[in-house]
Amino acid sequence: MVYQLYYWPTIQGRGEFVRLALEEAGAAYVDVARGENGVQEMMDALAPSEHPSFAPPFLTAGALTIGQVANILLYLGDHLHLAPRGEAARLWTHQLQLTIADLVAEAHDTHHPVSGERYYEDQKPEAQQRAAEFVRTRIPKFMGYFARALGEHDYFNGAHVSYADLSLFQVIAGLRYAFPKAMARSEARHPQLAVLHARVAQRPKIAAYLASERRLPFSEEGIFRHYPELDH
Amino acid sequence: MVYQLYYWPTIQGRGEFVRLALEEAGAAYVDVARGENGVQEMMDALAPSEHPSFAPPFLTAGALTIGQVANILLYLGDHLHLAPRGEAARLWTHQLQLTIADLVAEAHDTHHPVSGERYYEDQKPEAQQRAAEFVRTRIPKFMGYFARALGEHDYFNGAHVSYADLSLFQVIAGLRYAFPKAMARSEARHPQLAVLHARVAQRPKIAAYLASERRLPFSEEGIFRHYPELDH
Repeated sequence: MVYQLYYWPTIQGRGEFVRLALEEAGAAYVDVARGENGVQEMMDALAPSEHPSFAPPFLTAGALTIGQVANILLYLGDHLHLAPRGEAARLWTHQLQLTIADLVAEAHDTHHPVSGERYYEDQKPEAQQRAAEFVRTRIPKFMGYFARALGEHDYFNGAHVSYADLSLFQVIAGLRYAFPKAMARSEARHPQLAVLHARVAQRPKIAAYLASERRLPFSEEGIFRHYPELDH
Repeated sequence: MVYQLYYWPTIQGRGEFVRLALEEAGAAYVDVARGENGVQEMMDALAPSEHPSFAPPFLTAGALTIGQVANILLYLGDHLHLAPRGEAARLWTHQLQLTIADLVAEAHDTHHPVSGERYYEDQKPEAQQRAAEFVRTRIPKFMGYFARALGEHDYFNGAHVSYADLSLFQVIAGLRYAFPKAMARSEARHPQLAVLHARVAQRPKIAAYLASERRLPFSEEGIFRHYPELDH
């Protein structure tokens, strides 16, 4: 099986959560929009007559087309052994992923609180307010939650990595990039999160991916943007 | 099996998507926080040592504790026959639910674009801007998407109702309450969405629920709030 991932070719964005899962599993995949005419190919594939997606990313797997990051990971979790098989642990993994998705959406809105269509520069005062609250109350609440959920385990489900661990790695990396001061404080309070981040980063396939050209850099075009004036 | 649903007792909010599923299935459930000392009971149950939730709603089912609306519905879909069994259709149903969740979050942020902690009255100018864009671009995009996803079917998956249909019913009801003018325009363009709304509302168990005291009214404490100045 060769998977086709469809996502914007120049940013990590939401597609990165899927890329990390495919890379960890050593799956064969094509990052379609990064090929020649790939963005056009992606836009053509976005709305098939059956099971259209609202937005990238989406994944095709044989005859299946699957949209929404958490849903793609639910599928890959089962097929690539990136989630436990038992019902309780499988649901728990998905619950964590959905909470990560909530955090990702909030991180995005720190720089686009008023309008997703206008530039950050056109909503800076509002971004200041929203980011201040994000830094003061939301990062601590989310990080405290994930630290509690992790407990003393190596990974959320114990000894075995899941897509939720990979996604939390990505969120920690992104928040470190965007809000280095705020994250330094939060990580000092929850050292096990830095340990999880390092544990994922050192997994052989993830380490190889991060060192490759396939890993795009963080930037001010993505979800996690470093605007120093928003980091308190 | 008697389910325990934990959610704020005075609003429909995110808990309503779970209530509708339980009601359609005729499941036995306790809406815990609506009982005496129920909110305290909910707060005590929010963070068990295993599988804590980030926020209400969460559901207990025997020994299972499940958080995040879409995850609860994934579980109930399987157990209460509110989702297809086949992999493709099961994932499709979940994909629709996750897109509905995105819309719900955006609907919330129309009245709280800058801060979830401060009153709407303290962020009215920003709410005006965010709501204007929501009405102008987001409602049409989401409604167009769901209309396309529904196609000529009675329900998203054909003849059988799923939790995603129940959730879309709730979103349409909520948006009609909050943005009656904008929704009238959108529904004129996509009449099949009003048909779906009516079809769900007329299902015997849903109709009985909507007529009961268990169905709370929409209000300016919930996600869908009617502030006439935001509806263009």
